[in-house]
Amino acid sequence: MAKDQPPRPSRRGFLKAGGAAVAAGASLGAGLAASPSALARAAPHSVDPQLVVEPFYGTHQSGIVTPQQTHTYVAALDLTTTRREDVIALLRAWTEASARLTQGATAAPLPANTTNSASSATTASSTDNAGDAANPTTSKPAPDSGDVLGLGPCGLTITFGFGPGLFTHEGKDRYGLASRRPAALVDLPRFNGDQLIAEKTGGDLFIQACANDQQVAFHAVRQLSRMAYGVATMRWGQSGFLSGPRGQTPRNLMGFKDGTNNPSTTQPQLMNEFVWAKASPDAPWMEGGTYTVVRRIRITLEHWDNTEVDFQEQVFGRHKYSGAPIGKQHEFDAVDLKEEDKDGNPVIPENSHVRLSNQASNNGAQILRRSYSYNDGTNFYIERWPPWRQETEYDAGLIFIAHQGDPRTGFIPINDRLAKFDMMNQFTTHVGSAIFAVPPGAKPGSYIGAGLFET
Amino acid sequence: MAKDQPPRPSRRGFLKAGGAAVAAGASLGAGLAASPSALARAAPHSVDPQLVVEPFYGTHQSGIVTPQQTHTYVAALDLTTTRREDVIALLRAWTEASARLTQGATAAPLPANTTNSASSATTASSTDNAGDAANPTTSKPAPDSGDVLGLGPCGLTITFGFGPGLFTHEGKDRYGLASRRPAALVDLPRFNGDQLIAEKTGGDLFIQACANDQQVAFHAVRQLSRMAYGVATMRWGQSGFLSGPRGQTPRNLMGFKDGTNNPSTTQPQLMNEFVWAKASPDAPWMEGGTYTVVRRIRITLEHWDNTEVDFQEQVFGRHKYSGAPIGKQHEFDAVDLKEEDKDGNPVIPENSHVRLSNQASNNGAQILRRSYSYNDGTNFYIERWPPWRQETEYDAGLIFIAHQGDPRTGFIPINDRLAKFDMMNQFTTHVGSAIFAVPPGAKPGSYIGAGLFET
Repeated sequence: MAKDQPPRPSRRGFLKAGGAAVAAGASLGAGLAASPSALARAAPHSVDPQLVVEPFYGTHQSGIVTPQQTHTYVAALDLTTTRREDVIALLRAWTEASARLTQGATAAPLPANTTNSASSATTASSTDNAGDAANPTTSKPAPDSGDVLGLGPCGLTITFGFGPGLFTHEGKDRYGLASRRPAALVDLPRFNGDQLIAEKTGGDLFIQACANDQQVAFHAVRQLSRMAYGVATMRWGQSGFLSGPRGQTPRNLMGFKDGTNNPSTTQPQLMNEFVWAKASPDAPWMEGGTYTVVRRIRITLEHWDNTEVDFQEQVFGRHKYSGAPIGKQHEFDAVDLKEEDKDGNPVIPENSHVRLSNQASNNGAQILRRSYSYNDGTNFYIERWPPWRQETEYDAGLIFIAHQGDPRTGFIPINDRLAKFDMMNQFTTHVGSAIFAVPPGAKPGSYIGAGLFET
Repeated sequence: MAKDQPPRPSRRGFLKAGGAAVAAGASLGAGLAASPSALARAAPHSVDPQLVVEPFYGTHQSGIVTPQQTHTYVAALDLTTTRREDVIALLRAWTEASARLTQGATAAPLPANTTNSASSATTASSTDNAGDAANPTTSKPAPDSGDVLGLGPCGLTITFGFGPGLFTHEGKDRYGLASRRPAALVDLPRFNGDQLIAEKTGGDLFIQACANDQQVAFHAVRQLSRMAYGVATMRWGQSGFLSGPRGQTPRNLMGFKDGTNNPSTTQPQLMNEFVWAKASPDAPWMEGGTYTVVRRIRITLEHWDNTEVDFQEQVFGRHKYSGAPIGKQHEFDAVDLKEEDKDGNPVIPENSHVRLSNQASNNGAQILRRSYSYNDGTNFYIERWPPWRQETEYDAGLIFIAHQGDPRTGFIPINDRLAKFDMMNQFTTHVGSAIFAVPPGAKPGSYIGAGLFET
């Protein structure tokens, strides 16, 4: 597909055309690696977000420097199989299904012969559905739940990662991969204030699906999770969203712009310096990948909403409405950590979030944050110690997602400092945590993680 | 505002203009009651969903027959005050704030003098912010969390309802309203299979916020909930979403089109017959209102996904992909419950959802369903009895919302039949439930529920 003609198939179009859009295997990804993911960024209002297509195959996995879609569903699975070949087969199947899903197709071709309506949905899909047409049984579940039929690709990206448990599990080298574990894939230390819930923490395999539609994102993880039956089980799943005026920095649930100081994804040298993993002797297969940290950070919105804006700005180190550093006028004005007021006090408070997380406070380290808000309704709490309260509180906050070339110089030292000193901590609690080695992208015909298993 | 020129203010536009868009009090709602809510329906692709404005004031509350937006946040609160005038003051404050929020404005004017950035956000807002400008204290929290600044109105509707507890609470007539409780506002009976969780059930006051943006919907409930401090507390809150090809019937998480057989909201006589409450001697104040039932229905998606499409279609009584009744070709083909196959068996199974819920099976009763899917991530379960399993499962399903003129002839008999016989029950569990009297709309200058308190 030509670069100036981004592909615009939709699930409905796909169905009507009987899969023609993705029928020719090689064309599925070959031309897409170069497809401009700047599409959504360049002309946010002129492009229908349902019709955006992001590439699946490529040097890097999508969903890392891809302009952020409006929704995500992230999930971690635990491997239950003892067989290395099962893991490889799963990754192959996930790769093929993901290439289809990101094009707006079903996870696998629908059976051609189920009912009047199913057959009308797959008319003329002779090439794509040949396998199923030759085997006219309907005695197994359809390979796709069908709940996003008719929606477009919605800019879907699917990003896979490997947790420490893929390499060693309870001291055992299950799959002969222990020696290939990257040194950078450390077990995260306990940070000050961590209140991690086991069922929302860790995981052997990671799936991040991002899309411009909530159901499309979840649909992807749901189909992939089904394919893992007998090999891996869900450990945790979490939906997230991002609302913001298009083309501007989105605001998190605290009402502040979030991501202003991110390294620019449009500058490849910054991505090479901070985001993409370099070839290292211990893990040459990770070149072009990244390391991803996920933290479920609950925010006590009720408490936050009862604080004054002036105080909130001291916590962030930024003005709330403009997003400018304190004392400045504009969002992208430089953060000057040395500036003092007339009394010699720092203009940006010592314990403010922006100071503690700033590159200048962290030996030049930067991480690429690509977080989403989450909102899981409410929970009823009883606190049996002061203030002895019982009440319904929002279960809402931030799914913090950060990518970096090495978490030992990225998230870990930055969060260590934040966890100790950040004024924001009185409003936030880290309840989930995970770290993954996110391998480079796959070539058509290969699969995600091939470099780990086959070199 | 002229009918052929729908208002298109945005939160950003509002801020830049200093609130001019909503400064002239009366204009806020007066002209909007006639604003065409068919806007989104008529030309779904040509209208930016961020810029859609729905009226707040009017004969009926919005959010009932309004074309369904893509997201909702529904919540119930429990009253804690003992004073009738507190309830009235809350409803007045909610009405005023809702009129602002649905226009894309903040819940109340932002203080004019907080910081450089706050003042730039409210420049020239002399009329609207006069109260605050005259009182330059910043020692209280801002009246809006600010997290959707810059977004448009997003088609926001806010709908209020009254639960049984407003009228009598633990046998007490707290507010002198016991005699005004409508007979139609019954306490819902226990239905077969109900597994209701107390913290997701009931409530004295109901807020339903619907918008074309997840954060805008939650933002509305969050601001309104803050205004209730000291008068009412959150009982439960729940976010929901609706994904579907625009202009078509959306699919629920089971992959079936949901809402095909709804009475058409474009036919006022159907709405008068089935949805709008009639003046009754016991509750004349409810004329033009409706009765709303909310059920949180968890769906075991993992189980459902392991069933064959043929079986799923038997459960629904419809074909999955086309949405047509079994044996028919098109979604809107009539449901013929009398049709039999060559062996004399009913084509649409006896225990199928579409048969049991059909008007013909329920003495002609119809309800207006306006449901949303929900997805609250995953939960970890341990079952200590057969099948003795422990696993992570999706916490996802349907926020069933149904409006009707009288639940005694609507939801209750229909759900009684479904709860006993519907094949779908093996995949669904009702875990939350509530019923509310949703009063008619308010006139500008008055407030939601005025008829209950003042006549």
